[in-house]
Amino acid sequence: MTLLPLLAPRSIAVIGASDNKARIGGVPVDLLIRAKFERLYPVNPKSPAVQGLKAYPAIEDVPETVDLVVVAVSADATLDQLERAHALGIPAAIVYASGYAETNEADGIARQAELTAFAERTGMVVAGPNCMGNANFTDAVFTTFGQSFQPGETAGNTALLTQSGNMCATLFRMARRAGVTFSHVINTGNEANVDFSDYLDFLAADASTHSALCYVEELRDGAKFLAAAARFRAAGKLLAVYKVGASEKGAAAARSHTAALAGDTAAYDAAFLKAGVARASELSTLSDLGYLHTLGDKIGGGNCAILSISGAAGAILSDALSLAGGDVPTLPDAVQQGLAAQIPGHSMVSNPVDMTGNIVNANDFLSECIRLVLEPDDIDVVLLYLPGVFLKNALDQVEKAAATAGKALIVIDTFALADRDALAKAGIGYFDDFDRAAKAIAAYGAWKTARAQATAPAVTTAAWPQLPDDRSALSETEGKEALALFGVPVVRDALVTTAQEARVQAEAVGFPLVAKLVSPDVAHKTEHGLIRLSLQTADAAVDAFEQMMAKARSMNVHIEGVTFEPMLQGGVEILAGVTRDPVFGWMLTVGLGGVWTELMKDATHRLLPVDAAGAEAMLRSLKGFGLLDGYRGAPKADVAQAAKAIAALGDAVLAGGSRLREVEVNPLLVMPQGKGAVAVDALVLLTEPEPVRTREVA
Amino acid sequence: MTLLPLLAPRSIAVIGASDNKARIGGVPVDLLIRAKFERLYPVNPKSPAVQGLKAYPAIEDVPETVDLVVVAVSADATLDQLERAHALGIPAAIVYASGYAETNEADGIARQAELTAFAERTGMVVAGPNCMGNANFTDAVFTTFGQSFQPGETAGNTALLTQSGNMCATLFRMARRAGVTFSHVINTGNEANVDFSDYLDFLAADASTHSALCYVEELRDGAKFLAAAARFRAAGKLLAVYKVGASEKGAAAARSHTAALAGDTAAYDAAFLKAGVARASELSTLSDLGYLHTLGDKIGGGNCAILSISGAAGAILSDALSLAGGDVPTLPDAVQQGLAAQIPGHSMVSNPVDMTGNIVNANDFLSECIRLVLEPDDIDVVLLYLPGVFLKNALDQVEKAAATAGKALIVIDTFALADRDALAKAGIGYFDDFDRAAKAIAAYGAWKTARAQATAPAVTTAAWPQLPDDRSALSETEGKEALALFGVPVVRDALVTTAQEARVQAEAVGFPLVAKLVSPDVAHKTEHGLIRLSLQTADAAVDAFEQMMAKARSMNVHIEGVTFEPMLQGGVEILAGVTRDPVFGWMLTVGLGGVWTELMKDATHRLLPVDAAGAEAMLRSLKGFGLLDGYRGAPKADVAQAAKAIAALGDAVLAGGSRLREVEVNPLLVMPQGKGAVAVDALVLLTEPEPVRTREVA
Repeated sequence: MTLLPLLAPRSIAVIGASDNKARIGGVPVDLLIRAKFERLYPVNPKSPAVQGLKAYPAIEDVPETVDLVVVAVSADATLDQLERAHALGIPAAIVYASGYAETNEADGIARQAELTAFAERTGMVVAGPNCMGNANFTDAVFTTFGQSFQPGETAGNTALLTQSGNMCATLFRMARRAGVTFSHVINTGNEANVDFSDYLDFLAADASTHSALCYVEELRDGAKFLAAAARFRAAGKLLAVYKVGASEKGAAAARSHTAALAGDTAAYDAAFLKAGVARASELSTLSDLGYLHTLGDKIGGGNCAILSISGAAGAILSDALSLAGGDVPTLPDAVQQGLAAQIPGHSMVSNPVDMTGNIVNANDFLSECIRLVLEPDDIDVVLLYLPGVFLKNALDQVEKAAATAGKALIVIDTFALADRDALAKAGIGYFDDFDRAAKAIAAYGAWKTARAQATAPAVTTAAWPQLPDDRSALSETEGKEALALFGVPVVRDALVTTAQEARVQAEAVGFPLVAKLVSPDVAHKTEHGLIRLSLQTADAAVDAFEQMMAKARSMNVHIEGVTFEPMLQGGVEILAGVTRDPVFGWMLTVGLGGVWTELMKDATHRLLPVDAAGAEAMLRSLKGFGLLDGYRGAPKADVAQAAKAIAALGDAVLAGGSRLREVEVNPLLVMPQGKGAVAVDALVLLTEPEPVRTREVA
Repeated sequence: MTLLPLLAPRSIAVIGASDNKARIGGVPVDLLIRAKFERLYPVNPKSPAVQGLKAYPAIEDVPETVDLVVVAVSADATLDQLERAHALGIPAAIVYASGYAETNEADGIARQAELTAFAERTGMVVAGPNCMGNANFTDAVFTTFGQSFQPGETAGNTALLTQSGNMCATLFRMARRAGVTFSHVINTGNEANVDFSDYLDFLAADASTHSALCYVEELRDGAKFLAAAARFRAAGKLLAVYKVGASEKGAAAARSHTAALAGDTAAYDAAFLKAGVARASELSTLSDLGYLHTLGDKIGGGNCAILSISGAAGAILSDALSLAGGDVPTLPDAVQQGLAAQIPGHSMVSNPVDMTGNIVNANDFLSECIRLVLEPDDIDVVLLYLPGVFLKNALDQVEKAAATAGKALIVIDTFALADRDALAKAGIGYFDDFDRAAKAIAAYGAWKTARAQATAPAVTTAAWPQLPDDRSALSETEGKEALALFGVPVVRDALVTTAQEARVQAEAVGFPLVAKLVSPDVAHKTEHGLIRLSLQTADAAVDAFEQMMAKARSMNVHIEGVTFEPMLQGGVEILAGVTRDPVFGWMLTVGLGGVWTELMKDATHRLLPVDAAGAEAMLRSLKGFGLLDGYRGAPKADVAQAAKAIAALGDAVLAGGSRLREVEVNPLLVMPQGKGAVAVDALVLLTEPEPVRTREVA
């Protein structure tokens, strides 16, 4: 759909236009008049004039086919107005009214469904309902009843896109205080027709927009969002997101006032990672990301050199950057020596650099320090702590350095005495708070760094065997056989159903061996005594077979038999599982298994596809990665082969289609380097018939 | 020492007084003149007058024995001036000069040692060196060369105490922007004589000071700090601390420009916990803690009820509070029903409460909502999200509610349109940023909650046996026997040195048993095969004995023999260790042992003494506590007895005195409930002779 008539209309009718400039039918008329918007048509059946303009009794009386109707009437009256506007050939509408799905009541939900059906039937572009409209500063078009957006504001190249009207106004004001100017401000409302990602698509293509700051509660269509984000990436534009719901209470609150599907928090994190968005952990960081983007293209990442006139401030900034995910790399020896030659005494020069108060005495001292720390390749940003008069006196040197530097210079001045806008014009960043600066710089740097990475798409020619229609899961043996087709290395096992078979197969598998009951109906087999380890003889194996079968019969479950498989010695157990998020689809979880994942939450998530490099990065990001890395003198585990196995698992799931519900390899036994990794157990859950087992591991 | 002549002098001589109001010898003269301080005596050998006042050639010429000399001369000339001032009977001095220990050079360190020796010899109170002096707003006395502190500023009841001159100015400005007014502003400098805790002692007793905001780099004397903090607690005053060095880089930077002992970050955390201070995680939070304290005594903790006109803002605030350590308790059913009766539609009323825009329509609607959420006992604070015009229109209702409420009302207005000072006068808190509000409220609430708790002092009549002079450690057997005297339950073991003894003792201990080599010289015994588990027969025990002795002989270490002890079945292994921090003394570490503590950093620390309730709280704070709490159907572990054993370990160490270097029980095996906990192994390291082993577990 094209959103041009919605977001850059050349003519507008306001239905329910009011003479009262403070009412929702009056605000847009007032704003548009003051913005000198010419082709504006108030529609009001009771007044011949509205705010000094001729008013029309009905939309049919308006003398042209406008691009957009702003519908400022009650929910009951709205659909009729839309039908009439569509009959006239009007392509777009904004619906202010509330009383739809956001009420969480049957009436409102039904009313919204009608609206969606209307839009889909007619092709009319309908924004809202329950939205406050938009402000297009580029073209000076105001279709909002919000009073925060005023004609005459300087237009800029940042877009604001929010799923809350109140946050739209709040973020606009916060960002304006931070020095950000806007192209478009958009409040999506209930997204009955035009959704969040439709707006993103528009903004990705909009020449006046260089970045978008987004307040997100819930996304309805994960794939559409990822595609829109890819367009932002391709256009070199910043897509920055604050997502509410990081805590349980926050998530519950966000869900309760949206009508959207509840995606998993981990899935949102994984999706934003894949989408390559810049994440703001705090609302103020969102504004600051927009601000940093306006400084130009000089910020390359989150590695900072800190030049401070105060040792304390250098330490505080180092703390703040480290905690926010940025870095303060130790400077090369040559640079340190250069700095030490400049700075009297034994000040710290490794980074942060304590320049001491010497800056006030020596001409060009600061310039020389800046020149030195700009040199190393692994420095992305130079942070200058120059409070109050220190900045004032050194401004020349800073401006000269900024003009020629290929990297960004950002000043921290806790005295808050300088002119941020003037500095921005010189390409110099400016913050008056350590932690705010650190969070923004770290988040922006992480975004820049992530842009350089890409995931190879899944390539597989293998196919799943026919999946059974009458079960909700494959047996472990079936599961492992299927995964092996896609290159997942598995422990082969022998299924036995009689004591006689058990004796023969036990000798064939060899000792020690592991015996497991095979049944799709039993979870937690260990707790039920249905997995037996370290069986050393054929007699022991036959005994175990008989005991497990007897136990299983007593549980009255479907029994396929018992498998024997070699008991592998050594290795580290990890788990890799794929679940389907309702919004974003297949999500891969990698963890150290068992208690590590369950109690310590030491697991990591990505959306599929994940290639071997991505899988290895997931493994290395685990807090307990040390267990795979030669813990306490143990041999290092074969992380590369484990990563390949995990990537193959992901490829298998992508090839599996809609019948798959969840696939988990647990444990994936990672052997010492050079000896590979092998799936000891595989769980394949199917969507039909009705599931009878729940996920065991989050 | 009394700091009255230093911090509230009635007469002052400025040595090195300058006619130039911008120089460090001129600033204090200028400030004191403008503050109408009368008994002020500039000392300058070259001028008959300074800034319009008669100047004296030397301190001996000043016509009275002043309370304080401000010494604004170079480091070389300072000590002579101090000697002469002391000879005149002057009790206190401030030394501005740098060039002391902060240089990290031998000259400067020696110069500082001379200064310390002078002060100790004479009893003169000497502030600094390398400090910027102080501002006493209560009495309008300015002894600083900092230009941020000006006569005429409103005096208040908050003190600012910092170990960095620059942060003194920065925090003063930040806090003033946050609406905080001050009694005293103090910069400690190098603390050659008067140290951080001396100032705290003064402030704890100072009637004009109700709270202290502290910027801390390093504390030199942990016990003194804890005693000063206790005086703050006893006086009901807030002691709020921002400690730099939370990251490795930040800690290294802080160390490099102070001359203080490097305490462990974990020890600082433990000390601040014991001291009952309010911790600020960000510099801005420190200001905000001071601000909240000025609102009066109504904030009881960090449990918030959120009333919001926007569902989004309610969700964001819930996230921010949860992440900051506060809570948003679910409201009781009766309160929810009351709210639901007020609020149209199906809004969220469980907390956060989405009041919707209805607030603009109904009189007393907000008052009624506030009244309802004030009721539950577990609500400490009512947070109102009322941006811009919403607050303006509802101000009457908020003010009325605040006047009668026994709990604090805090408004969040992201539009930042209200008058913070006017609201503060009505006892109403006000923030324009969600995250800043949440961090401050959570930190302040945590402080209030912690004040209600206390630790029982250690009481033990037991004593350690004579400790050997010729070893750096006790054997495991000796260590366990000693700890048992203090009530730590231990696994008794039998030490054997011959094969014959081995056979006899193995039968006596019973099977299965564990055999361990006893040697103070071997760490990582498992890796060397010097611990053998699950020995089932006397023959196996004798074999193990012989193999281990042979292996140990080949390692050429001191061998005391091999112990046999029963191999306990079941139970969960934890570790409890006590190490000595150079600043704060004995620190107890509790963790789940081994990989949990080493890789996952799942350990918790407190300073001794720790009683059983404290030890249990430590166990329950572990991320992996679930392992002790009936994980996967296992029986719950005897946490109460484990806590008693840990407290007994702490008491034992406190009773042990200076010969102890480190004591660790690892593992402490926690059996199922009702079956106690038992120390399987104990490590007791001694201070003399020179240590030969290092800590294995952080």
